[in-house]
Amino acid sequence: MRVKAVLFDAYGTLFDVHSVVALAESLFPGQGAALSQAWRTRQLEYTWLRTLSNRYRDFWQVTGDALTWSAQAQHLPLTAAQHAQLLDAYLRLQPFSENLEVLRSLQASGMVLGILSNGTASMLDAAIDSAGMRDLFTHVLSVDSIGRYKTDAGAYALGTDAVGAPANEIAFVSSNCWDAIGATWFGYRTFWVNRGNAPMDQLDASPDGVGSSLRDLPRFLAR
Amino acid sequence: MRVKAVLFDAYGTLFDVHSVVALAESLFPGQGAALSQAWRTRQLEYTWLRTLSNRYRDFWQVTGDALTWSAQAQHLPLTAAQHAQLLDAYLRLQPFSENLEVLRSLQASGMVLGILSNGTASMLDAAIDSAGMRDLFTHVLSVDSIGRYKTDAGAYALGTDAVGAPANEIAFVSSNCWDAIGATWFGYRTFWVNRGNAPMDQLDASPDGVGSSLRDLPRFLAR
Repeated sequence: MRVKAVLFDAYGTLFDVHSVVALAESLFPGQGAALSQAWRTRQLEYTWLRTLSNRYRDFWQVTGDALTWSAQAQHLPLTAAQHAQLLDAYLRLQPFSENLEVLRSLQASGMVLGILSNGTASMLDAAIDSAGMRDLFTHVLSVDSIGRYKTDAGAYALGTDAVGAPANEIAFVSSNCWDAIGATWFGYRTFWVNRGNAPMDQLDASPDGVGSSLRDLPRFLAR
Repeated sequence: MRVKAVLFDAYGTLFDVHSVVALAESLFPGQGAALSQAWRTRQLEYTWLRTLSNRYRDFWQVTGDALTWSAQAQHLPLTAAQHAQLLDAYLRLQPFSENLEVLRSLQASGMVLGILSNGTASMLDAAIDSAGMRDLFTHVLSVDSIGRYKTDAGAYALGTDAVGAPANEIAFVSSNCWDAIGATWFGYRTFWVNRGNAPMDQLDASPDGVGSSLRDLPRFLAR
């Protein structure tokens, strides 16, 4: 495979959202994991519903809205301060331990690297700094510029437009199976980082490659 | 409010899917409820993702695919026969106890009634017969005719096209908050049957009315 560039999803792929889960658990012992899971599910569902109905609001807003709903659904007395604290945790994420080494190696080999995310530019900037990933990425692309979330084709087209190459010359990497499949549908060479050993989504299409961490990516790119 | 017609969502709104949950529990004691919940969540998510990416497959297929994934995610050894048994339960649903009385009363008052559902025509036909609701509905509308699921505007437009009236002269009733809000965005007069006492979805819009069962609908229509 000759790929010119590698585009990465952000949350869960580059940035470990475990610190958000840990904070939720410390605020609501015994219920934080369920809150985090409901929050993440609702966050994504709201992105899809808003895009389907052309009712875009940015990812910061949607993430906060999903948190509000999830806390209510679990009857958790989430204060405004706790709401802000949980949202702010999105701005101070850690990288997965293997990521920096793999990314630096890819960059050293001459690969163009980028991020293609639902997050807003300011959310991504904060997370990149927090994770110590400044200077690794040539492109930091947010769907906020077009007001449509993944898996809308317009979201994935941000990558081909920025790189200036057809999709089949660009690799797209995500820890979300649905995101990797959406990118497959669009035409990218796709790699699913299946960190949680989840089953493949049943959508009549598969990522081109699957691994358990970013360590498996260089071998995929060398194929 | 002067509405000429009332359109209903099908699954969970007219038809009680409890029998599906009960069957799942009898097949996998202690895990059936979680399976049913994951199945329903994935089923909807697949409709949204497929519509976003213009990769339509009908609701029977999507429902089966979501079941396959959900069983795998919970490490349940779902056989092909059990898969078929669970899917077939969708064809033999019971109506919620109050529904027949309310629907007959609305019909007697001269209201045009219809169904507007993600389900295929044959799925809806089977469920209508099973629930004893034949002859109640002037319109039985399936998104299968356009290949796009709710909340796509094209799905909701099936109702205005069939009734031949603007959306603000038609009531749309759903037990799914996101569906009622999608219909609100489209312009219908919307009523959310909040059977499970769930919190309102945080999508910057609200259904025009909320009740705990279809018994609360006539009062909403008389407003």
